[in-house]
Amino acid sequence: MQAAYWNGQRLAFDPAYPAPQADEKTALVRVSLAGICSTDLQIFQGYMGFTGVPGHEFVGEVIEGPTALLGQRVVGEINFACGQCPTCAKGLGRHCPTRRVMGILQADGTFAEYVAVPAANLHPVPAQVADEAAVFTEPLAAAFEILEQIHLQPTDDVVVFGDGKLGLLCAQVLHLTGARVHLVGRHGHKLELLRPHGIRTVLLPDHPPGQADVVVEATGSAEGLQRAMETVRPRGTLVLKSTVAAEHHLSLAPLVINEVTVIGSRCGRFPPALQALSHNRVSVTPLIEHVYSLTAAGDAAAHASRRGALKVLLCP
Amino acid sequence: MQAAYWNGQRLAFDPAYPAPQADEKTALVRVSLAGICSTDLQIFQGYMGFTGVPGHEFVGEVIEGPTALLGQRVVGEINFACGQCPTCAKGLGRHCPTRRVMGILQADGTFAEYVAVPAANLHPVPAQVADEAAVFTEPLAAAFEILEQIHLQPTDDVVVFGDGKLGLLCAQVLHLTGARVHLVGRHGHKLELLRPHGIRTVLLPDHPPGQADVVVEATGSAEGLQRAMETVRPRGTLVLKSTVAAEHHLSLAPLVINEVTVIGSRCGRFPPALQALSHNRVSVTPLIEHVYSLTAAGDAAAHASRRGALKVLLCP
Ligand SMILES: [Zn+2]
Ligand SMILES: [Zn+2]
Ligand SMILES: [Zn+2]
Ligand SMILES: [Zn+2]
Repeated sequence: MQAAYWNGQRLAFDPAYPAPQADEKTALVRVSLAGICSTDLQIFQGYMGFTGVPGHEFVGEVIEGPTALLGQRVVGEINFACGQCPTCAKGLGRHCPTRRVMGILQADGTFAEYVAVPAANLHPVPAQVADEAAVFTEPLAAAFEILEQIHLQPTDDVVVFGDGKLGLLCAQVLHLTGARVHLVGRHGHKLELLRPHGIRTVLLPDHPPGQADVVVEATGSAEGLQRAMETVRPRGTLVLKSTVAAEHHLSLAPLVINEVTVIGSRCGRFPPALQALSHNRVSVTPLIEHVYSLTAAGDAAAHASRRGALKVLLCP
Repeated sequence: MQAAYWNGQRLAFDPAYPAPQADEKTALVRVSLAGICSTDLQIFQGYMGFTGVPGHEFVGEVIEGPTALLGQRVVGEINFACGQCPTCAKGLGRHCPTRRVMGILQADGTFAEYVAVPAANLHPVPAQVADEAAVFTEPLAAAFEILEQIHLQPTDDVVVFGDGKLGLLCAQVLHLTGARVHLVGRHGHKLELLRPHGIRTVLLPDHPPGQADVVVEATGSAEGLQRAMETVRPRGTLVLKSTVAAEHHLSLAPLVINEVTVIGSRCGRFPPALQALSHNRVSVTPLIEHVYSLTAAGDAAAHASRRGALKVLLCP
């Protein structure tokens, strides 16, 4: 099959990469669209020491595997859990200590014609959700993850830092709860995308609002983290929504003195995201900048790496 | 009056320090016992740039001020709030942005014959609680603060790192909830103090238990913080209970990947602490190492600074 392969040095197009196999628990999915995410760009910087087919955002069609799924249009959760351990028993397969992660850890991903995904990870896509929207299910689920982790109240003041892909999705999701949401970013045209939703925006270097109940850090920069800490009220909550932030450090002084709660937040369950897409509660397709063919995966990755780039898709 | 004065260089005994004044909202308290806390030792390292009479742990008797309090034996909360601002209106005077803090920020403290305390901050001490126990109300309230901030479940596995004063109090308080508590420390004789309570102990370098639901960092050391991060389970909670930790930094990588919740925790309300002392639910007096007269405040501070020292008291 055709695939883009990360060999630790560069993203190479391979016209004859070995196709994955289906079995009674694993479906073979023909990828219709795959998305490039910041985590992929980090992998190209050496993150996780991954080599193989990258990519964990996709929508596709099941062409082999468990009968119930055959022919279905699907999206898939990215953590391949053991299903046996105490963590999995708690419903936290996303944190299974022996998990593989699609396109990130010991499992080939979606920058390919076909990807093998455990049937347990797949979710049929409602008919009214187009491929171009469904491909956002994974990052949208990561935004909904915040609502699984914290009790956001309708009266809460929320500030999201970062007008990148994840920030734009987080702001929309948190706004659904009735909370007052401000998005703070550097790009007027991106902030504009959220105006129709009634989400307030702040274009830096204008002053972000202070004393928020909940602050979401989605810039991944040390500077954004610093601003976020300054913006959260005493006893407030700071959500770290960026693996890029992984390289930074948090100073503990203001955290202890102001009794701030800091929550690391990663992947989420898919059903809330699919429901929001079905009912057009969030708008995701305006985030698409360009669709590349898989043969141009290198160009696509270069485009996605540009400062300020939004969503770049691959079409196998 | 007699007082110990921190001039930015040393803790000097002053036999004729100006006595504070009572008014209709402020009581004058004659200090019976004052405790030396790690925060005081940090002040002697320059923390908060404080100069004045240090000390924020005390038990004493009201000798002037509002009639209802006259002659009462009292303990007092340390944050002197404005009582007017939105933060105060939420009952979070401890975080009032214009607060003064007894012996720490713009208010003289308890290493003196007398201390002036807002009447709103004072709590009468039940008759059955001796002065030697009552003087622990403030740090015990700081341990109860954890239970105000997180919902600890009776089935939770809890690990407390640090067998210093605060660690010993936190372990006892958290154990009251029914949770399984391990205290991890370096001093066999301190760990012994908790055996009668049925609290499990681990003497380093023995291996602390892994995968705890809740971990409390009360060592204030970078090493303790590192161990704490390694011990908390994915989606678990790490409570930072040490202002000494303020100088350290937290690496964000494991925090985001494991979706850990980190909570800074500082001062608490006094009533739960007084109730626990009244009913002998915690034992605090075994933590007392020595009682010094106020004239020997310098020696007392030197004693409290010794590695592994427990509670040192001053008796004016
Ligand atoms: Zn991603
Ligand atoms: Zn598992
Ligand atoms: Zn203290
Ligand atoms: Zn106030």
